[in-house]
Amino acid sequence: MGVRIIVTGGTFDKEYNELTGQLFFRNTHVAEMLERGRSRVAVEVETPMMIDSLEMTDADRARIIDRCRFAAERSIVITHGTDTMVETARALAGARIEGKTIVLTGAMIPYAFGSSDGLFNLGSALSFVQVLAPDVYVAMNGKYFRWDGVRKDRETGFFEAN
Amino acid sequence: MGVRIIVTGGTFDKEYNELTGQLFFRNTHVAEMLERGRSRVAVEVETPMMIDSLEMTDADRARIIDRCRFAAERSIVITHGTDTMVETARALAGARIEGKTIVLTGAMIPYAFGSSDGLFNLGSALSFVQVLAPDVYVAMNGKYFRWDGVRKDRETGFFEAN
Amino acid sequence: MGVRIIVTGGTFDKEYNELTGQLFFRNTHVAEMLERGRSRVAVEVETPMMIDSLEMTDADRARIIDRCRFAAERSIVITHGTDTMVETARALAGARIEGKTIVLTGAMIPYAFGSSDGLFNLGSALSFVQVLAPDVYVAMNGKYFRWDGVRKDRETGFFEAN
Amino acid sequence: MGVRIIVTGGTFDKEYNELTGQLFFRNTHVAEMLERGRSRVAVEVETPMMIDSLEMTDADRARIIDRCRFAAERSIVITHGTDTMVETARALAGARIEGKTIVLTGAMIPYAFGSSDGLFNLGSALSFVQVLAPDVYVAMNGKYFRWDGVRKDRETGFFEAN
Repeated sequence: MGVRIIVTGGTFDKEYNELTGQLFFRNTHVAEMLERGRSRVAVEVETPMMIDSLEMTDADRARIIDRCRFAAERSIVITHGTDTMVETARALAGARIEGKTIVLTGAMIPYAFGSSDGLFNLGSALSFVQVLAPDVYVAMNGKYFRWDGVRKDRETGFFEAN
Repeated sequence: MGVRIIVTGGTFDKEYNELTGQLFFRNTHVAEMLERGRSRVAVEVETPMMIDSLEMTDADRARIIDRCRFAAERSIVITHGTDTMVETARALAGARIEGKTIVLTGAMIPYAFGSSDGLFNLGSALSFVQVLAPDVYVAMNGKYFRWDGVRKDRETGFFEAN
Repeated sequence: MGVRIIVTGGTFDKEYNELTGQLFFRNTHVAEMLERGRSRVAVEVETPMMIDSLEMTDADRARIIDRCRFAAERSIVITHGTDTMVETARALAGARIEGKTIVLTGAMIPYAFGSSDGLFNLGSALSFVQVLAPDVYVAMNGKYFRWDGVRKDRETGFFEAN
Repeated sequence: MGVRIIVTGGTFDKEYNELTGQLFFRNTHVAEMLERGRSRVAVEVETPMMIDSLEMTDADRARIIDRCRFAAERSIVITHGTDTMVETARALAGARIEGKTIVLTGAMIPYAFGSSDGLFNLGSALSFVQVLAPDVYVAMNGKYFRWDGVRKDRETGFFEAN
């Protein structure tokens, strides 16, 4: 059936505006990343929002939940800013979407900056989503965590079991 | 217990010699790649050989089998040239190593060349190895294949179910 | 006699802090860039400051002037933020430093981001400084401009004759 | 009047064929490199050949000489493989093309490999060609050399005064 990829923004997709010196969102890099990874997984990519996860509202989370609930696919990867990724995972779990494996991932360094962890994380999330049992997970740092068993350590930027 | 990564060479780890214009092996890039991916998976990396997989002999395969058999870890990733990856997977399966999940991966473009699929593949293989049942697999193009269900399409360079 | 390179910061040398999502200065990338460019020009690199050029004060400019005046070399490249590069060039010209060719350059995108113009600009500035007559110049966009004949177009980010 | 850029191939423009593992030529990267360098120098790019400089024949050199002789521009950059760059420079000098500054440059590592010296060299050559007196030069390693005063050290890959 393939995998649905829901892009929500986050560091993953940020770019550098050379005129202002600010980071901003333009288009998602997911398609380019899948091409670089030579991925042959059947995917549908949608981009309901492109925002910093610190700005994600309850309404945004409700939209993401709806997208997951009504997606035809049983395997869903969500790219998301790392700051509130765990919070969105919790909201998704609370929505009790039956029979779907949902994996959230992101990046600490924008893909566009060359030295990003994004390509590794996308390969990881796309793999976990194909084999994990239905539930909501976070895939970061090469590991997967169930939604209620993870926190981001803000000092180090690593995700770890809580 | 962590994951053992057995490096055998392949395009994954090739570099460009600017004096001769030839590709060659120096050191593996696996540690650098795991750092870029910000991986926190406990790994042991060993490099029993650094060769082009077209040059891999039965004796080389026997060494790889031994490494897998006597590894303390139950999860093993092998980086390998793509040309004979399926053949090595078959040899490993024939060795009937009990209770271990072994995932072979590689790259079509050297990691050192910037535009490589290697980081994606390493993220993918490291993820699959943590969740798949004991057996021998190939992880390429974002997918996993059981050792007896895969072939490399030499026209396209993609791995596919056979 | 070689070329003195005076590093003052600017976008050229900015890096991304993955924990805060902010750009910041750590060490200059000039040595790494010269190595990538396989440069064999004899250079002395000094880093009197690492600042955003919008924060450059008259006192900072006085220090840069002193460094140029007392440098043993007759050829000097200054890496500098683009926003006030022309202003610093004017200050240097006003200091009437005899017998020295001074070329300011910078970048619109940090070298660390991979897609930077910095390596091109450094190659350009280092070349112009070896052949231009003593005076103060700006080298950007593959061109050189005398200090009193250039402005930065803030809409486009390009330097042009004024 | 601007600068004419004559592309002849060389390591500069080589790419990696992921199916064969061989290096090959497709299109020149010069336009992409000028864009990355944010160059605003008026240029005309032509690609009379895309070859390894070890394969360059007298007939090829005669074509390059013709292109230089009949170019409208007085400033010409030639991208060229490094192995016989000095030989082509000598042939150009022997052709006694009046009133033109011709600068040959190249790279030791393909631009497509990310860690290339090519962008630095292109910035350098494009700068030297705008200010040097009419004659034939090689621009490599951040320096320029008159055609009869340079050799490539095959042990180190550096160009140096002979």
